Amino acid sequence: MKLASRKAGGRDGQLVVVDTALARFVPVPQIAPTLQSALDHWLEVEPRLREVSAALNADQLDGARPFDPLDCAAPLPRAYQWVDGSAYVNHVELVRKARGAQMPASFWTDPLVYQGGSDDLLGACDPACFVSEEHGIDLEAEVAVITDDVPIGVSVADAAVHIKLVMLVNDWSLRNLIPAELSKGFGFYQSKPATAYSSVAVTMDELGSAWQEGKVHLPLLSQINGAPLGHPNAGIDMTFSFPQLLAHVTRTRRLGAGAIIGSGTVSNLDRSQGSSCLAEVRMLELLAQGAPRTPFLKFGDRVRIEMLDSSGYSIFGAIDQAVTRC
Amino acid sequence: MKLASRKAGGRDGQLVVVDTALARFVPVPQIAPTLQSALDHWLEVEPRLREVSAALNADQLDGARPFDPLDCAAPLPRAYQWVDGSAYVNHVELVRKARGAQMPASFWTDPLVYQGGSDDLLGACDPACFVSEEHGIDLEAEVAVITDDVPIGVSVADAAVHIKLVMLVNDWSLRNLIPAELSKGFGFYQSKPATAYSSVAVTMDELGSAWQEGKVHLPLLSQINGAPLGHPNAGIDMTFSFPQLLAHVTRTRRLGAGAIIGSGTVSNLDRSQGSSCLAEVRMLELLAQGAPRTPFLKFGDRVRIEMLDSSGYSIFGAIDQAVTRC
Repeated sequence: MKLASRKAGGRDGQLVVVDTALARFVPVPQIAPTLQSALDHWLEVEPRLREVSAALNADQLDGARPFDPLDCAAPLPRAYQWVDGSAYVNHVELVRKARGAQMPASFWTDPLVYQGGSDDLLGACDPACFVSEEHGIDLEAEVAVITDDVPIGVSVADAAVHIKLVMLVNDWSLRNLIPAELSKGFGFYQSKPATAYSSVAVTMDELGSAWQEGKVHLPLLSQINGAPLGHPNAGIDMTFSFPQLLAHVTRTRRLGAGAIIGSGTVSNLDRSQGSSCLAEVRMLELLAQGAPRTPFLKFGDRVRIEMLDSSGYSIFGAIDQAVTRC
Repeated sequence: MKLASRKAGGRDGQLVVVDTALARFVPVPQIAPTLQSALDHWLEVEPRLREVSAALNADQLDGARPFDPLDCAAPLPRAYQWVDGSAYVNHVELVRKARGAQMPASFWTDPLVYQGGSDDLLGACDPACFVSEEHGIDLEAEVAVITDDVPIGVSVADAAVHIKLVMLVNDWSLRNLIPAELSKGFGFYQSKPATAYSSVAVTMDELGSAWQEGKVHLPLLSQINGAPLGHPNAGIDMTFSFPQLLAHVTRTRRLGAGAIIGSGTVSNLDRSQGSSCLAEVRMLELLAQGAPRTPFLKFGDRVRIEMLDSSGYSIFGAIDQAVTRC
């Protein structure tokens, strides 16, 4: 089942069911007005949404209309929780090197997460606006899951059942603000502007055998201005699975329905797979050539992030954003 | 005008208008079902709520019922944004000393904030549950404001108009988890469990002359098991006003309606005013006597946080919570 939120009906958009091919959609106001409302009552709502999805995919619905990602907000245009992991630890190690910081060995066993802001989540095709190019504008291509209510202290074994939907994220970062902000000791705030999400969030059955052990085993494709940046496999080198991240973030507090948990920037140790952010590219250049060559993003650049199934079809639709000045 | 959210009608509660004396309330479903909904349409909704408030305070409403804080959730039982400042910089300096860390001089001019989690906000009389006493359970008594939509890059001068409501916060902290978590570099997560809020949020006119220059000039009373912990004045030694905090947190991103911005733990340089958290008490003991004597909180303890007007009436109702095991 694939779900999206059209820009209609208010700040939280209008929940629609999209067919597997991302060709057609139907609104479902009779079931739930918004995705948050659906997640608030997922047990009762999910079977009814799946009925619509089955009928839509079987071409048995009269009211289906052509699907256009340009009409979409983020699946959750605003959320109550966005916490981002750094599950690809080799990426963390590289980025730390890039800012001259050591990575403790415990990072391989104790997940690193940061509390993100979730009051302004961008749609897949929304412009990404920034105050200044001098801030070091960078993409971070990631996978994220959406949960139902997760109790405090959930075990890794019990966490998987709370994962309801999967989507893609561009966790925009302002690299040149990060060192000074992190040195203050309280984590990211100004250096993490609004994140962007794929137009469609999908249930795990849409991923078929690619969803295994709480990871998505498919390449995550990133492009800048049409040129490939990377295609690392999100199932490879993910040190902590989504259930492991869920156990970590519920150690002392519960999660409310509609919580979004990110994987962190997808990165493979096999560097021939390319990168999911420019900071990693620049670090590899620094190591190989003594200095970074690739600049951060400029106003007017375009960033595209997508994941294809084994037949080459887009699973989530592309995040495809122009970098603009606010 | 005073507003609360009764535990009724769903996850976001039922918006009610409370009289100034906190004696009676009326639901206002004809105006807005929830406080978030009211904030989403504040321009149109506020005058209608004020009409109800005026009639309620003039004893002209037939449907008014006795107000009981025990029936209340947090004013926003879940929110899209909770960002907490550390505006009382002398407190930051003390707490840093307590964990053996230096405070940079820039902290006196560049606000420190942390991005909090907002999917689970506790009501004023809800039990505060924790996993272990070993985590070092501590209160942090604070003032917070709720905003409407705040554009990116708002100036200090333009920020004040976006502040719509004021309330009290207990920003629960797990002190013994903080050093290891902050040393990972990404800020707080596990060390900041669910925060609690006063049952009532008020418009600034309810504060009278105590609301000046974006600060609340009144003592903030904290008690543990009925014994006074402190009564520092929230208007004194607040290095950064709420408008200054707003300008800081919108430098690279906007805020959505219903964003909650905290002051950080209220603390006066005049130590005779007492403290708003145990970490500060313990640090002062360490400095004076070579070792902290006061323990952190235990299961069964009660914490009360309140602010009185010049006539001795409770403005927001008390945050009055039992510390319990999850």
